[in-house]
Amino acid sequence: MALTIGVDIGGTKVAAGVVDEEGEILARLRRDTPVEPSGAAVDVIVALVRELAGRYDVEAVGLGAPGFVDAGRSTVLFTPNLPWRDEPLRETVEKRCGLPAVVENDANAAAWGEAGFGAGRGERFVVLITIGTGIGGGLVLDGVLYRGRFGVAAEIGHLNVIPGGRLCGCGNKGCWEQYASGRALVREAQELARRSPEEARRLLELGGGWPEGITGPIVTEAAKAGDPAALRCFEVLAQWLGHGMADLAAILDPGLFVLGGGVSEAGEILRAPAAAEYEERLTGHGRRPLAEVRLAELGPEAGIVGAADLARLR
Amino acid sequence: MALTIGVDIGGTKVAAGVVDEEGEILARLRRDTPVEPSGAAVDVIVALVRELAGRYDVEAVGLGAPGFVDAGRSTVLFTPNLPWRDEPLRETVEKRCGLPAVVENDANAAAWGEAGFGAGRGERFVVLITIGTGIGGGLVLDGVLYRGRFGVAAEIGHLNVIPGGRLCGCGNKGCWEQYASGRALVREAQELARRSPEEARRLLELGGGWPEGITGPIVTEAAKAGDPAALRCFEVLAQWLGHGMADLAAILDPGLFVLGGGVSEAGEILRAPAAAEYEERLTGHGRRPLAEVRLAELGPEAGIVGAADLARLR
Repeated sequence: MALTIGVDIGGTKVAAGVVDEEGEILARLRRDTPVEPSGAAVDVIVALVRELAGRYDVEAVGLGAPGFVDAGRSTVLFTPNLPWRDEPLRETVEKRCGLPAVVENDANAAAWGEAGFGAGRGERFVVLITIGTGIGGGLVLDGVLYRGRFGVAAEIGHLNVIPGGRLCGCGNKGCWEQYASGRALVREAQELARRSPEEARRLLELGGGWPEGITGPIVTEAAKAGDPAALRCFEVLAQWLGHGMADLAAILDPGLFVLGGGVSEAGEILRAPAAAEYEERLTGHGRRPLAEVRLAELGPEAGIVGAADLARLR
Repeated sequence: MALTIGVDIGGTKVAAGVVDEEGEILARLRRDTPVEPSGAAVDVIVALVRELAGRYDVEAVGLGAPGFVDAGRSTVLFTPNLPWRDEPLRETVEKRCGLPAVVENDANAAAWGEAGFGAGRGERFVVLITIGTGIGGGLVLDGVLYRGRFGVAAEIGHLNVIPGGRLCGCGNKGCWEQYASGRALVREAQELARRSPEEARRLLELGGGWPEGITGPIVTEAAKAGDPAALRCFEVLAQWLGHGMADLAAILDPGLFVLGGGVSEAGEILRAPAAAEYEERLTGHGRRPLAEVRLAELGPEAGIVGAADLARLR
């Protein structure tokens, strides 16, 4: 059975794995991502690939990079968290590792993994929404990973949901990820704790007594334990999530939404109200079939699995 | 050379044409669309097809219908302007005309026509925005007409641009077409005439002296003649247009936007400020290639040409 390596290059960690044709990860490696100097992150990637290639007979490498990747799937045009500008990642890895490589946007790679081996199995029109600190996304349209004309499609976190709204890291105001991400969840909880400390008592306790101590995992933990304030924060998040999903469905008419990323670990607490809001807001609701809404299954490994499979299909 | 018939079924008119492989229309017919009873519109379509098929040797019929069409391109699920619900249009036309037929959403058919034979020639990733009374749209992604999982993709006029904004015919509030359509242009001009009759003097003159007399063609005519008030109305429209285009580009990363529909007859008065606003609002602006923005070339005949070509490719 042909094996490939998938590499998920994050802003803080590089994770690599040897993956088989069924999407099973046979071996894993993980290192911190060195941000400086510019070549250090590439050195780590090359070292991980070489180490895995020394232990397994692999045929190619797929690299998921956190930024804009060119349409030729070779060059990282820009990435906000690493000092890469027009970085020829494919060429470098191919030369230094002696293996064919493809480069893909990390969210696209994760979407491909979830669509093929996780929650999207059997569905040809899948929108993956990765809800972490921000919102990432990937589109599988008619069974194919959709990359757009220039390779930078599916920047769904930057849909505008409120003109002139909250300032986003992208420079615009009112982007979706300012309202429906992990950071937005924490902001909501912290604001509630400042405004109504009594109502947010449980959240404050878990946060060490002060609003700034409340984190995403704390809100999730409290919500799972039934804390009404934490559940209210998830409801606000889910409403914004459903709002953006309705926009995506108006354009793309998918068969399935998959909710992934750290925030989706809240499970039904997030999924059910987001699906309800999506259905209510969808244009033409009641006169058209509805997409399903599922939780992701592969967790943080979707990126490795997807990148490895894209290398196989290169 | 193989000929096909394209039919563009509008809420007020049915237009049909015999079209060759180059997208040239060899013959045209046009009738009013009878709204009642339910079968009358189908009778008109059948009569037009039979008449054209009697004069030319045609091999198939493409039907562009104003509503949701099923993924099998056979049935009109729902249309707001005709009393069709789950109307088996393909089967009826095939039986009564003795020709193979395909049914497509009218905006999709027009997009296919413009992409293949009009402003989109040579480009594989095209978003067509039809700015008429409302906003329609069609997507050609990687050279293929994109229909979505259930056949109802590209309802781009119903992107939400302002939560809780103006009520839309679809039942939602704040849809894009409430801000960037011909109706929005007229609303803007009429409001200006009420608020500042002096400023809108020229528009009022053209409208017969009262705000309600100001129509879309009047605003276009005044803007083309350089009237500052009319130009201001177009600027507002173009800003909203660019706003939605930035959203579409964040998701789809097209190579080209084509602006069509009656309002696009304003030409550069609409195109230039819309393109500027789109560029400014695009997420990642300056770090990614930009889609071009062009005006449609085929005018109202795009639907006939596109439907006929879809019949050829059936």
